[in-house]
Amino acid sequence: MAMTEHSSVVSPLLTDLYQISMAYAYWKSGKHQEESTFDLFFRKNPFGGEFTLFAGLEDCLKFVQNYKFQTSDIDYLRKALPDYIEKEFYDFLSTLDMNDIRIYAMPEGSVAFPRLPLLRIEGPLLKAQLLETTLLTLVNFASLVATNAARFRTAVEPQKILHEFGLRRAQGPDGGLSASKYCYLGGFDGTSNVLAGKLYGIPIRGTHAHAFVSSYQNLDELKVRELSDRITGESRPFAQLCLKYLDELGSILKIFPDQTSKGELAAFIAYAISFPSGFLALVDTYDVLKSGVPNFLAVALALHECNYEALGLRLDSGDLAYLSLRVRANFVEVAQKFNLSYIEHLNIVASNDINEDTLHSLEKQGHAIDTFGIGTHLVTCQKQPALGCVYKLVELNGKPCIKVSQDIEKVTIPGRKNVYRFYDSNGEALCDLMTTTDESEPIPGTRKLCRHPFYETKRAYVTPTTVQTMYKLYWANGQIQHALPTWQEVRIYAQQQIKTVRKDHRRNLNPTPYKVSVTDHLYLFLHRLWMNSVPIGELA
Amino acid sequence: MAMTEHSSVVSPLLTDLYQISMAYAYWKSGKHQEESTFDLFFRKNPFGGEFTLFAGLEDCLKFVQNYKFQTSDIDYLRKALPDYIEKEFYDFLSTLDMNDIRIYAMPEGSVAFPRLPLLRIEGPLLKAQLLETTLLTLVNFASLVATNAARFRTAVEPQKILHEFGLRRAQGPDGGLSASKYCYLGGFDGTSNVLAGKLYGIPIRGTHAHAFVSSYQNLDELKVRELSDRITGESRPFAQLCLKYLDELGSILKIFPDQTSKGELAAFIAYAISFPSGFLALVDTYDVLKSGVPNFLAVALALHECNYEALGLRLDSGDLAYLSLRVRANFVEVAQKFNLSYIEHLNIVASNDINEDTLHSLEKQGHAIDTFGIGTHLVTCQKQPALGCVYKLVELNGKPCIKVSQDIEKVTIPGRKNVYRFYDSNGEALCDLMTTTDESEPIPGTRKLCRHPFYETKRAYVTPTTVQTMYKLYWANGQIQHALPTWQEVRIYAQQQIKTVRKDHRRNLNPTPYKVSVTDHLYLFLHRLWMNSVPIGELA
Repeated sequence: MAMTEHSSVVSPLLTDLYQISMAYAYWKSGKHQEESTFDLFFRKNPFGGEFTLFAGLEDCLKFVQNYKFQTSDIDYLRKALPDYIEKEFYDFLSTLDMNDIRIYAMPEGSVAFPRLPLLRIEGPLLKAQLLETTLLTLVNFASLVATNAARFRTAVEPQKILHEFGLRRAQGPDGGLSASKYCYLGGFDGTSNVLAGKLYGIPIRGTHAHAFVSSYQNLDELKVRELSDRITGESRPFAQLCLKYLDELGSILKIFPDQTSKGELAAFIAYAISFPSGFLALVDTYDVLKSGVPNFLAVALALHECNYEALGLRLDSGDLAYLSLRVRANFVEVAQKFNLSYIEHLNIVASNDINEDTLHSLEKQGHAIDTFGIGTHLVTCQKQPALGCVYKLVELNGKPCIKVSQDIEKVTIPGRKNVYRFYDSNGEALCDLMTTTDESEPIPGTRKLCRHPFYETKRAYVTPTTVQTMYKLYWANGQIQHALPTWQEVRIYAQQQIKTVRKDHRRNLNPTPYKVSVTDHLYLFLHRLWMNSVPIGELA
Repeated sequence: MAMTEHSSVVSPLLTDLYQISMAYAYWKSGKHQEESTFDLFFRKNPFGGEFTLFAGLEDCLKFVQNYKFQTSDIDYLRKALPDYIEKEFYDFLSTLDMNDIRIYAMPEGSVAFPRLPLLRIEGPLLKAQLLETTLLTLVNFASLVATNAARFRTAVEPQKILHEFGLRRAQGPDGGLSASKYCYLGGFDGTSNVLAGKLYGIPIRGTHAHAFVSSYQNLDELKVRELSDRITGESRPFAQLCLKYLDELGSILKIFPDQTSKGELAAFIAYAISFPSGFLALVDTYDVLKSGVPNFLAVALALHECNYEALGLRLDSGDLAYLSLRVRANFVEVAQKFNLSYIEHLNIVASNDINEDTLHSLEKQGHAIDTFGIGTHLVTCQKQPALGCVYKLVELNGKPCIKVSQDIEKVTIPGRKNVYRFYDSNGEALCDLMTTTDESEPIPGTRKLCRHPFYETKRAYVTPTTVQTMYKLYWANGQIQHALPTWQEVRIYAQQQIKTVRKDHRRNLNPTPYKVSVTDHLYLFLHRLWMNSVPIGELA
């Protein structure tokens, strides 16, 4: 779709047909103005984890703000729907806006847990119903991929750099763009996706591909062979310098200088002449240790002689742990021989089909990688490519609605609810508490009974040091109610939120479930309704 | 992104940064005009299968046609790239178009196999390189989800109807839209996605959700209770008729009419009054057999008395095989009692988290489902959420390029190549043959030696009854060279293509690999280059 500009205008037709069918049936039955509340929530954290990053709110708000059927939309619906649909319904749709809808939500980037409404949508039944599919579409993938990124972030040491390189394997152009945006939210440091850089201010990263190396077969092909000294401006015979250093490296690295690929060396020289302050070379087109690394170091040393410093190299195949350690050892030797300590610390980037498990395994066995470039597994969320957010009616005309199910996890918690997060004195989250909206706010320092929503005996008193009110009213009276934070601010908030989650909830293997509880009042309210909704069975 | 209109303008910034870095390095090194050929292909069919549907071509062509850096793009690049980049490069970029690029491709909807170039891109090195990421993004997901849809299609009997219901779980708005579009190509009959209906002319389908049923608690809430007879126009007491039939159904279905949910019945009545010719009810909000089906049939019989015919019902939970058979048995009884044979054949729609394996299992155990509504697993391709298409330089300045690898599957086949598909007298595909572009076309009825590209002894003579030339020149001289087929025509071609693939290649379990072969000439060419590219090892 049109991606030339940062336009988040999502059509109201980006929805399931049944929403429009139901809208007509509500309208035709005189029910469309009934006051409703819907909760948007998920039932299970993704990836076998115990936390989720909530994302997609800004897109939801912009969708609601711009909600408007275009003339061509109405024309299409007239053709697509049965011809007995009353004409007045189309007039009604064509002037429809979301100005009497209210949206309460957690701030974007909040940590969220199962059954907590991420969004609470209030207003006329027809309108709240019409929002369902699109809000789900905007929240589901955003939250999923942000959570995935946060898990990758957790899998490596904090000082490691993570770049998202997934555009080419993403689920469509917008899948790629959303992935870049929400991976940054989840803790990635940059992306290869240039458009994401332009639209969201995300740092963009990348150097060259194998094709660049393959495009040179030998040194004769180099048309430009000189480089100007960074300080003196003097023109230096750069290609010749590289060959001189390659020769010197033979005995240091114990390789045969005449056996490194001269096509590869030519490519590195051309690249360094183009990016003398940004030289980062892909070294695995031929043989990493016998060709790529010696060629790279030769160019790095020649750059040094011209008063530039190379940045590092990238590994895109092979055993990344082993190779990175061997490469670092080469760096150390060269740093010592030439008395250039920064060479020892050149950036080693790795980028070969890395997933979350690879990261854990690398951290365990030891490696010398500084930066990870991660694509397919990250952006398509290979471990679980969909989050199962649902959108459920919880109140209509002031009366609570409950959806019962034989599967206890699928019972919805009825009525309009607030959520509070309790923190201990270290700023770590203790548990979340859901209340009905007519209950008073929990008070910091005061003991509060927190009950499991379904299991009678599971309950505990909790005394929070601080209490976070999770919802804000984001949309009312046809306006976004808060100046939305910048994308950088959202990212900082998300990273702070993740730190409030205890490590045992965040760990990869068998994490401890975080407690989402209800007040005694909400517990009793829920269970009374539940009992009344399930008829007593009759054994024939 | 802007989805209000059918606009396929994908920004040239929707690419990896390294493409732009390489472009600069090619430009700076005077290599940008070198004549190159790239192949876009995959190495492995997805989902453990042995065929792939090629899709995304139209999007690729429109991307190339509209390729243009906007002023704001150039401004962004100036800020994002190092400040020593020569200013003339930005002038060069700002006037760049793809008019001297040539794209050969298989028609969209062709069946494709590993190693066959789906697209062959020819032209100046810098330009062909700049297209890499975006072409991959446009082909990878389109082909993946079309193939997934084709596999679901193969899993059920041909007369079954398949609808795509995946928008809410898709990977972003555009992920959802692409999925709807390419599932239709793969053999689905309709989508719930209204925007996909508008943009691509795909039939849209859907009725109502659980929320609609939950929005009624009892019959008193019905504000409209009458329905006009379709033929006479006479107003009939519709709600009362429904109750009368519900009462009659008690003994026929062996249920207690007073124990069906009256909220559900009210919702069905309201829906039927709104859609009297389109009544399809979701029957599992309470109890399918004790409440949903009796309520549905009561309304269906009342509709009949008003000269309308109900369409059917939808199951969204439980054991779909068992329930559908029980429902069909109910239909049969009611059809007989009321002498209304069409009731027996009412449409049973099923839609509960269905994946490819569920379909195979349902077909095996027997069921009475007519229509499947399929979402998450289909659109996110849960079994394998990414296709691994790559883009490799195969020729530069008239010289073949080969990418060698220790993994034989990763060796690329060098040079500019054509592909021919051989068919037998039944119209079934026998094998594909790759040739260099300077070889003559294979002649139908003439014996041809077909060799495995890598294994010396694997070879066979094949005499095709017909030969399909797989590539057409789609883009040259700045113009799309063929009037593109409509989306309906592409779908018909894709379905024909799938039928040419033998069933043993298409089956779910251990399918037979399809043979992709090369001519003797190409075999020798490839192996000579390969030998020359791999230096003789040296054991220290």
